[in-house]
Amino acid sequence: MTYPNTQEILSHVQKALEQDDINKAIQVLQTLKPADQAEVFEDLDNEDQVSLLPNLKTDISADILEYIEDEDAARLISNLPQDTAVRIINEMEPDKAADLLGDIHPQQAQSILEQMENPDEVRPLLLHPDESAGGLMTSEYLALRRRMTVNDALQAMRAWHPDKEQIYYLFVVDAQNKLCGIISPRQLIVADPNDRLMDIMDTDVISVKAGVDQEQVAELMRRYDLLALPVVDENNVLLGIITIDDVIDVVVDEATEDIQKLGGAQPLDEPYLLTKATSIFRKRITWLLLLFVTESLTGTVLRHFEEELQAVVALSFFVPLLIGTGGNAGSQTTSTIIRALAVGEMNLQDALKAIWHEVRVGFLLGTAMSIAAYLRSLSWGSTNELSLTVAVSIFAIVLWANLLGAVLPTLALRLKIDPTVVSGPVMSTLVDATGLFIYFTIAKLVIHI
Amino acid sequence: MTYPNTQEILSHVQKALEQDDINKAIQVLQTLKPADQAEVFEDLDNEDQVSLLPNLKTDISADILEYIEDEDAARLISNLPQDTAVRIINEMEPDKAADLLGDIHPQQAQSILEQMENPDEVRPLLLHPDESAGGLMTSEYLALRRRMTVNDALQAMRAWHPDKEQIYYLFVVDAQNKLCGIISPRQLIVADPNDRLMDIMDTDVISVKAGVDQEQVAELMRRYDLLALPVVDENNVLLGIITIDDVIDVVVDEATEDIQKLGGAQPLDEPYLLTKATSIFRKRITWLLLLFVTESLTGTVLRHFEEELQAVVALSFFVPLLIGTGGNAGSQTTSTIIRALAVGEMNLQDALKAIWHEVRVGFLLGTAMSIAAYLRSLSWGSTNELSLTVAVSIFAIVLWANLLGAVLPTLALRLKIDPTVVSGPVMSTLVDATGLFIYFTIAKLVIHI
Repeated sequence: MTYPNTQEILSHVQKALEQDDINKAIQVLQTLKPADQAEVFEDLDNEDQVSLLPNLKTDISADILEYIEDEDAARLISNLPQDTAVRIINEMEPDKAADLLGDIHPQQAQSILEQMENPDEVRPLLLHPDESAGGLMTSEYLALRRRMTVNDALQAMRAWHPDKEQIYYLFVVDAQNKLCGIISPRQLIVADPNDRLMDIMDTDVISVKAGVDQEQVAELMRRYDLLALPVVDENNVLLGIITIDDVIDVVVDEATEDIQKLGGAQPLDEPYLLTKATSIFRKRITWLLLLFVTESLTGTVLRHFEEELQAVVALSFFVPLLIGTGGNAGSQTTSTIIRALAVGEMNLQDALKAIWHEVRVGFLLGTAMSIAAYLRSLSWGSTNELSLTVAVSIFAIVLWANLLGAVLPTLALRLKIDPTVVSGPVMSTLVDATGLFIYFTIAKLVIHI
Repeated sequence: MTYPNTQEILSHVQKALEQDDINKAIQVLQTLKPADQAEVFEDLDNEDQVSLLPNLKTDISADILEYIEDEDAARLISNLPQDTAVRIINEMEPDKAADLLGDIHPQQAQSILEQMENPDEVRPLLLHPDESAGGLMTSEYLALRRRMTVNDALQAMRAWHPDKEQIYYLFVVDAQNKLCGIISPRQLIVADPNDRLMDIMDTDVISVKAGVDQEQVAELMRRYDLLALPVVDENNVLLGIITIDDVIDVVVDEATEDIQKLGGAQPLDEPYLLTKATSIFRKRITWLLLLFVTESLTGTVLRHFEEELQAVVALSFFVPLLIGTGGNAGSQTTSTIIRALAVGEMNLQDALKAIWHEVRVGFLLGTAMSIAAYLRSLSWGSTNELSLTVAVSIFAIVLWANLLGAVLPTLALRLKIDPTVVSGPVMSTLVDATGLFIYFTIAKLVIHI
């Protein structure tokens, strides 16, 4: 499998549009799969997008709006005539349609909803925040009654025409629409046509409430290998289902956010290359300034030890080395712990275990590093006293950094702060200032400055 | 949905085992779902595991071996009598059985294979590296002939008894076993029983070769929303299929590896809390020492400017602040770029675009930071000359860090090195040494020391 050359296809489409040959452009685009159509479409000028979208087959336009970034889809819909917008949104999957309507002007969303074919499929989905189970779910699923036969169910499936072809499971509900079981397509095919659903269904159903966070949803579906997860209300009434393809996107997006936050930047809302330099600047400057203020502490510590620095200027040679090593040891720890928390390998009850784990690891690492530092310092021709100071300091700093690296993310989680936020640069900055303090205090004791 | 309290169940199981009441222990364990059984089982002593495993129902033992860490499963199997091992491995999914056999002694694997019921399901899977499409695929799928009718296909499905109940798609092959189409269970249910498969199948099938890397497999399945992906050889002969549940694990594991590498540690092979302190030490010390050696460069730079430091000791107050800010700006850049590369938002052809992007962002950030630094420096009572030095330096360092942050990951990718490896601490360390050089050079020019 090789991906189609979307760059080449993009230039064909652009050329056709330049020549006002919109049919040619449509023809070229239609040779692609939805994900690739969306990629090409996203790289077109806004003007071309607006002229092309209403002229594509409605299901293709709907697919494109589902695949492109939320902001772009909202902008496009706002620029289309109302009836065109309604026609396209009618063809979208209900969960994607709801996301889109949530992103445009409420008044426009309201009047589009009023003209839609099945507004009741979409309306309830508008109530839930994007990043919750309710925000992820779709109302496009087949719910069958307990007393139906397998044959009835097969008939119902034939009569049902969802936008999306894939069937994950069939959900069985009682007369109050309470979820009571699930059946896989395979079970339905294998069963006797006269069996009642209640006799063949699996009653041990895993479900979630609408308010559950999307990260937990992803973890649950991954743990139990689910292709679809039903969402229910307080009374176990079935509200919708979450499908695995949407959850993979969640897993990838959450990992991206974690990595960007660990790097000390607010996550970007759009693909990197499509984000303006000024937007990236805004996402980063707050953190950079905040860390700058914290990092100023190091200057305060250094000024506090000005006399010692004046007396033994060689002390300053080791400053970047010591705080750098402390920062590295701390990052190693936090990156491991944050991930262990995120994938469910450990939870808050394990915090003390993790801290004790890191104290032991820090002891080993500190010992090894202090030997390395002692030898390095002697090789620079430093005095034995200075070398000893550096060796003892690096041991203390590495141990301290490992401890801090274990405490900070777990403490953050306990305080319901996102642990990634306090872990990357925040941790390094803290280690910098405290590490310097440790270094100069030890220097005063050892060298008697 | 709440998770079962596995800690509590663990203690019940342990208590039962202490009293040699193995049936009680089994009973308690059987109330759980496979993923939870495995979690409880994994926390038992090795001795308890070995005595419990052969006594559980075979399908439960098989599930447990599928869910627990590869190393633990291999250790357990090596400790079981051969016929027990064969009995359990017979019940495992072929791809998981192959992974397990690949982890034990080749001779033992060979003799287990010879006693298995369907060794030919497993044998071909042993040929492929774990992290390739071939290593991920399973041989448990239903391949049907083109000329079969829908009714034939339904019969075949009834006769088929896979270990795993879920059917994703049916794969249609010709007389040479070449893949020619797929059919979803829904299509089969909706179709006329007398239709031939070749008339209703979807012929536009996405497939991969066995050697493709698992990251690409994950990206492909995510992009095209696939529940299963067929793996073929050079002649398009169907070898196996990759299912979405295994791919989610790949996505999560790859993100974990990236985050741990960005933190400057080799990824752990086992869950964090189960990894021994000495193993963690080994995973981290190499990087820490390597970075220590690189970071020593900063000492060399500082010694080079010893005279200047001696003359204006206040210069040293700003050292951690400047290199810290440079490191932060660089991390912000690399974390964004690495993720954009990983999720396919940008590729190597976009490298120049990314670099230009970061030059502009760096210019904006550098300007803002230099104003902040100038004011901070004055507020510490530094001279105007020193403050100017600091302001110009921080501008230059931030711009340089952003540039380096864009160049390093793309350069690594071009040289076929994993970009995460050179990006976290390696980048900071480089920025530290070069940043100091920039700072003191500017100081010499501005202050005329």
